[in-house]
Amino acid sequence: MAKYAIGVDYGTESGRALLVDVKDGREVATAIFKYTNGVIDERLPVDGAPVKLEPDWALQDPEDYIRVLKRTVPAVLKQSGVDPADVIGIGIDFTACTMLPALADGRPLCTLPEFRRNPHSWVKLWKHHAAQPEADKINATAEAMGQGWLDRYGGKISSEWFFSKTLQILDEAPEIYNAADRLLEAADWVVWQMTGVETRNSCTAGYKGLWSKREGFPSDDYFAALDERLRHVVDEKMSRTITPIGAKAGELSAQAAKWMGLRPGIAVAVANVDAHVAVPAATVTGVGRMVAIMGTSTCHMVLGSEEKLVPGICGYVEDGILPGFFGFEAGQSAVGDIFAAFVENQVPPRYWSQARKEKKDIHQVLEAEAAMLKPGESGLLALDWYNGNRSVLVDVDLTGLMLGGNLLTKAPEMYRALIEATAYGTRVIMEAFESHGVAVNELVTAGGLPEKNPLLMQIYADVTGREIRIAGSKQTPALGSAMFGALVAGKKAGGYDSIVDAAKKMARLNKISYKPNKGAQKVYDQLFTEYVTLHDYFGRGANDVMKRLKAIKAEARK
Amino acid sequence: MAKYAIGVDYGTESGRALLVDVKDGREVATAIFKYTNGVIDERLPVDGAPVKLEPDWALQDPEDYIRVLKRTVPAVLKQSGVDPADVIGIGIDFTACTMLPALADGRPLCTLPEFRRNPHSWVKLWKHHAAQPEADKINATAEAMGQGWLDRYGGKISSEWFFSKTLQILDEAPEIYNAADRLLEAADWVVWQMTGVETRNSCTAGYKGLWSKREGFPSDDYFAALDERLRHVVDEKMSRTITPIGAKAGELSAQAAKWMGLRPGIAVAVANVDAHVAVPAATVTGVGRMVAIMGTSTCHMVLGSEEKLVPGICGYVEDGILPGFFGFEAGQSAVGDIFAAFVENQVPPRYWSQARKEKKDIHQVLEAEAAMLKPGESGLLALDWYNGNRSVLVDVDLTGLMLGGNLLTKAPEMYRALIEATAYGTRVIMEAFESHGVAVNELVTAGGLPEKNPLLMQIYADVTGREIRIAGSKQTPALGSAMFGALVAGKKAGGYDSIVDAAKKMARLNKISYKPNKGAQKVYDQLFTEYVTLHDYFGRGANDVMKRLKAIKAEARK
Repeated sequence: MAKYAIGVDYGTESGRALLVDVKDGREVATAIFKYTNGVIDERLPVDGAPVKLEPDWALQDPEDYIRVLKRTVPAVLKQSGVDPADVIGIGIDFTACTMLPALADGRPLCTLPEFRRNPHSWVKLWKHHAAQPEADKINATAEAMGQGWLDRYGGKISSEWFFSKTLQILDEAPEIYNAADRLLEAADWVVWQMTGVETRNSCTAGYKGLWSKREGFPSDDYFAALDERLRHVVDEKMSRTITPIGAKAGELSAQAAKWMGLRPGIAVAVANVDAHVAVPAATVTGVGRMVAIMGTSTCHMVLGSEEKLVPGICGYVEDGILPGFFGFEAGQSAVGDIFAAFVENQVPPRYWSQARKEKKDIHQVLEAEAAMLKPGESGLLALDWYNGNRSVLVDVDLTGLMLGGNLLTKAPEMYRALIEATAYGTRVIMEAFESHGVAVNELVTAGGLPEKNPLLMQIYADVTGREIRIAGSKQTPALGSAMFGALVAGKKAGGYDSIVDAAKKMARLNKISYKPNKGAQKVYDQLFTEYVTLHDYFGRGANDVMKRLKAIKAEARK
Repeated sequence: MAKYAIGVDYGTESGRALLVDVKDGREVATAIFKYTNGVIDERLPVDGAPVKLEPDWALQDPEDYIRVLKRTVPAVLKQSGVDPADVIGIGIDFTACTMLPALADGRPLCTLPEFRRNPHSWVKLWKHHAAQPEADKINATAEAMGQGWLDRYGGKISSEWFFSKTLQILDEAPEIYNAADRLLEAADWVVWQMTGVETRNSCTAGYKGLWSKREGFPSDDYFAALDERLRHVVDEKMSRTITPIGAKAGELSAQAAKWMGLRPGIAVAVANVDAHVAVPAATVTGVGRMVAIMGTSTCHMVLGSEEKLVPGICGYVEDGILPGFFGFEAGQSAVGDIFAAFVENQVPPRYWSQARKEKKDIHQVLEAEAAMLKPGESGLLALDWYNGNRSVLVDVDLTGLMLGGNLLTKAPEMYRALIEATAYGTRVIMEAFESHGVAVNELVTAGGLPEKNPLLMQIYADVTGREIRIAGSKQTPALGSAMFGALVAGKKAGGYDSIVDAAKKMARLNKISYKPNKGAQKVYDQLFTEYVTLHDYFGRGANDVMKRLKAIKAEARK
């Protein structure tokens, strides 16, 4: 009798459930629910007088997360005709750090009438960027106090992370901070609602919460140095018990089973992060193969068997991606976003007309023309910093650059130069890993971009000199979550006893593989050398013109 | 009784006649003739099998020049009703170096059946760029032989100049070189056809022909070092008698008078170059005021009372612009061309729709939006090298750069950054003059751009910190030529005895003046510092990435 697992993937705009055959990973049914309140970045969805949000805020409604369970899981069961008795496990993954304040019984503060009109009571979404002053303080204080953990994160933490957001709540809404019995990742909150068991997963704790398996959290003294009221934040509002990825969080509660139309008591996995859970779903369960989740931005993950300090990466976490490995993460802060902005702001009418006439997407039109160019033929070289640089420079104040244009330079040439620039950015990250002892022999891609863009894939192969594969699933995070559901169900119940076994059976790669072309590689080696020279000149202090222009711009806008 | 002078301006695509009241410069009538054979850059306009041209060739038909006289002068007489007896003088100006081979009787070689199908027998237009190998040889040989005249031209001469083109004829068509009794500027050839007197004007001889009043031409030994057959080129095919600007070439011949419907015997001025003749027409007859002719590219001219070596300028010529002065010339190889290329290749559909809806030119739409930005507000900085850099780097292999963009950067911001970049380029030239002893206190502009672009003018004032005026005439070269016509007619005939007197009466400035805004100036001083840092980094050898990219591009296109 076939057994099934369900993965639920919580994205920025919607949540998706995927029902998978445990035996072979076959994706039987999928359903999406678009959050009723979406990304809340203008005003709170409350009755009465409007509550407007400041710039850079981005919130979500926790009730939307429950709606996802109620809508999508029954839908996949119905679609597939699968008997709920044959569903053996469930796992979820989430954007991160997406966090909220709650009571000890799990009720989010934003659901309480007395706090509902206070924006700080709501879920702070990963892309809530209003806690930059707090991040700055966290970094400066850590540096001043010589906090060793800073090195694990490449020397700097982000405004998106857990304690930046926590400190912002304390700074701006101490009443919310005080009323919160719990501060936790939305991922862990959903698992709590599903099982009645409160867990904290090692992935978000490690990558976003400054925790490590060997050292735990930063010291109380460090937190007190940020703000005396924060001294006991971990013991008062969080937990020192962190559950490793791949562990079972608990069993599906009667109430949650009712929401979803499943049997109570089935295994529920500890929550995960969307990018990280995609790694085993992209067949990667060992060292030497980097996974790049490529969409609007790119997240790079690679497993290592040893602890290594790699300057400029986002961080590494022991057991953070797969148990038994150090999970290294790096990122490029804009990739698909760069192509989208270019198309919107710099492509003249004739290409749009052509797209209409040929009934193609504008990206297809540009790609077809760009594909006819040889490496180096455009004469252009770009720096892919249109949204700053995440790795390895960790600098949001860097900006874009396009060099080499003449009076005849056309949009497809610039489009190709931008693709190439993001490929150089990936190569810089790969070389940072390799030169610090973390091997990267092959690249496996997943996400929205790879399948749609053969030219982009070939350029990445030629620029990096690596074979590039594409994950077989179009929904790797949900598949990964289902794999963890099958894992925590265990072999006896029809699942697996190790994630490696699960990956062998349930994950696969696309048959298409992109291999480096020797001739192209030679040209791109030359161009990459030029890229690195500009990267270091503008990115490492020789000429801080980008920062000075940003400062002048900020002054002009006052 | 009113007296009149006529100026004939020979441009790239057409020739124009302007009939002017000598008393006050009033422009009474104008007429244009578009060359029948235009710019010949694909195939010769000959009967029989097609004769195709190589890339970078650009020729003209000398018969078109005579057609201009036959069509436009009768037209302005007719339009105005002026009695030909009241026309006292005529002057012409031309693009340069635009040169041709001819027989001793003045017949162009391309009019002879035996040479008509040989491209080298035709007029080589200023923008014929196929003589780069010859220019390279001329520069290398001059450097190797320590030729002092090279310093007058900022250290390097161009493929556009007289001896580059001459050497190309000798290299590729020795039979044409041998058959040519004369090699001369088209400007001088037209004056020869008008008067029967062969002259060589000091402006083209100086700026394009390596001649100087004090030293004459380079030595025969130098020419022999280029090619032994070239040893006696000056004595055999040119002339050592160079006539200063402002001198009378001769009197209108009976035949030419018949072509034009004028009286034979009226005074004809020595030919001039279009940009240079515009200087007095822009009211400038003394030191300290730079004239910038701004169109697709910009030509900067300033008078000095002393000889000064200014590195990187196009050159200086004694009596080259006005008698009694050293005429200094510099240039920017693309200005209006940059805005045109940007509009064509990088402006998305919504601005085009807006232009259609508001019945505006696309440049007006972008300018209106760009004008709402404060200096520095775009965060962008560009290098205006999309067609190389003429002054002060004299380097055709430099390319464009746009730095500081983000995911929200819009077309009007880039448009403004490009305008600003060309203004910084002008400031670099001004500072080069000033730091080498040639004063530039004020800027007078003429040409196609200034009148149409108030934003551009204000940015130039703010960036350069100079008051900026605009020449009153929209056809300054033709007015300048008419002024020289009035000068050579002389006061007795109703004209003038000095160009200063002619300028006082016949030239004027637009009433609008652009004064620097202190606040904007302060921001632009900061941005200019950043521009200069990038200018020197990419332009003076610290990072030759632009040249390397061009070499890689050339390799890719093979």
